[in-house]
Amino acid sequence: MPSVDKLQEEVTRLLDGNIRSLSRLITLIESTPDVLGLIYPKIRNTGGKAHIIGITGPPGAGKSTLSSTLATHIRESGRTVAILACDPSSPFTGGSVLGDRVRMQSHYTDPGVFIRSISNRGSSGGLSNSTYGITTLLEAFGFDVILLETVGVGQTELDVMKNSDTVVVVIVPESGDAIQTMKAGLMEIADIFVVNKCDRAGADRMVRDVRSSLQLNDDHSDLAPIVKTRADVGDGVLELLLEIDTLRGNPEFPQNIDRLRSAKRLDALRSSVLLEMESMLDTILTKDNPENEPALASLINEVEIGQKDPITAARALLNLIKGNK
Amino acid sequence: MPSVDKLQEEVTRLLDGNIRSLSRLITLIESTPDVLGLIYPKIRNTGGKAHIIGITGPPGAGKSTLSSTLATHIRESGRTVAILACDPSSPFTGGSVLGDRVRMQSHYTDPGVFIRSISNRGSSGGLSNSTYGITTLLEAFGFDVILLETVGVGQTELDVMKNSDTVVVVIVPESGDAIQTMKAGLMEIADIFVVNKCDRAGADRMVRDVRSSLQLNDDHSDLAPIVKTRADVGDGVLELLLEIDTLRGNPEFPQNIDRLRSAKRLDALRSSVLLEMESMLDTILTKDNPENEPALASLINEVEIGQKDPITAARALLNLIKGNK
Repeated sequence: MPSVDKLQEEVTRLLDGNIRSLSRLITLIESTPDVLGLIYPKIRNTGGKAHIIGITGPPGAGKSTLSSTLATHIRESGRTVAILACDPSSPFTGGSVLGDRVRMQSHYTDPGVFIRSISNRGSSGGLSNSTYGITTLLEAFGFDVILLETVGVGQTELDVMKNSDTVVVVIVPESGDAIQTMKAGLMEIADIFVVNKCDRAGADRMVRDVRSSLQLNDDHSDLAPIVKTRADVGDGVLELLLEIDTLRGNPEFPQNIDRLRSAKRLDALRSSVLLEMESMLDTILTKDNPENEPALASLINEVEIGQKDPITAARALLNLIKGNK
Repeated sequence: MPSVDKLQEEVTRLLDGNIRSLSRLITLIESTPDVLGLIYPKIRNTGGKAHIIGITGPPGAGKSTLSSTLATHIRESGRTVAILACDPSSPFTGGSVLGDRVRMQSHYTDPGVFIRSISNRGSSGGLSNSTYGITTLLEAFGFDVILLETVGVGQTELDVMKNSDTVVVVIVPESGDAIQTMKAGLMEIADIFVVNKCDRAGADRMVRDVRSSLQLNDDHSDLAPIVKTRADVGDGVLELLLEIDTLRGNPEFPQNIDRLRSAKRLDALRSSVLLEMESMLDTILTKDNPENEPALASLINEVEIGQKDPITAARALLNLIKGNK
């Protein structure tokens, strides 16, 4: 890791618009999220201007193509855009890398478009943490819009999506099974739904299904717009951008954005603490850790040999950690 | 919740083979995992005899049909079987319920087959916890085999699968996208792969893809058998059972089973502690919680207004909780 002085210089260059410094700092934050603490004082007052748009949905829904076309329309409206594709650890990669290559073809001569893939083969909380740090960097650099794209619809993706101001959930007419497994949390954070590949059979039925599923919810998510697109030929994508901008342009948005950012900071705090707790716990549970006090060691042993049930033991363990028997 | 005395009586009846007591205790554990602590002393020495087989894979892979056919073959070999279908909270349910109904048709007159669906609309850690409790009950009742089936391939399903002795991952020739999003962890815990719907185009290619992906791993999972099935007509399912039984019959298995069970108990401890930590943290982060000490409250506020970065604050918060500044 570079010295704090070198880091500060790199941050100064980033704030001056140096794209290489941005790239280097992203690489650093991706591997060492703690770096954020060292540069935060310099960048914290520059944030809050970008519109962070999350794009999520089941694999194969066409999210990459959609982001790319969306980026084209955002550029046409005179705004700069960064695309951050987050791919939770997968031994079978290829998707996001290939997606990047295709997107590169149309965007790589345009300095107003920045594209980056990040992945994390470690813990899922780590990916969400580094996403927080990286979007903070991209904002500090001055991008008007950040498209935050994830693969899949699991808990990790949900955590990553918490870094967005506006969440777009992309599905296709065949997504029945995928929708079935979509977690309740994902439906709740969706601001806009997209039914992509809408030329396929069942598109209208899918729109109706989403609508009626949303109406089962108690909150006001049943008002979320549903947009039909064909991202491959561009149909409906401008309409989608208009819906996104309408949400942003809503008179309530300027007040909401402060609330959103505060909530996002607390979410980042929450996931960082959980990550630390998890790593602390894993140290304690390391086979015969000599650092463990006798009471702790014997409690773990009792669970291991089946003498004490894990649920009751969990509370006892927590009390031992907190030091108050 | 019933009194401890009533609970003990219910457990005695369960150990006597009363299926209604089993059902009632499962319902209780599903909603209140803590109940396990009260009955554990009575059942802990009865466990360890069942073979717990986990069945997981992407939605639409045909896991329900496969479990049902597998159950038929297990019955034919003279063993009793319980099928526990775990469906992490989904607002779009239907899958597991429908699956149950179809399976019921062939199994519901057979007292040697017990079928139950559980779901948890709360936290995912909770589902894994109640799965631990319920499989412990099913073992205590005396089932020879427990089929533990999950929907999807996310972190929750991975946590649930940790309760199995042998993990079967089911995919179909079209699962390319799904495999792409399969977490590394899932590949690592797979003991056997099934390519179901193997009459479809691309089945052999999928077998080769899985094989070569496995070979990229450092561990010995490249030796995991890959079985082709057509669960709907029963093709290959008996072969699958033979592979499962071979793994179980391996001379190393009797020694392994003790290690497996110990590891499983520690996993259950780990997820219980994390669940408790998460709920403790959420209490602390509750908006303006008056219980928070001033130092804690001001730290949270500094993050909320963007004065302190969440990553650095996370460590400070943990130190405050542990009481050692």
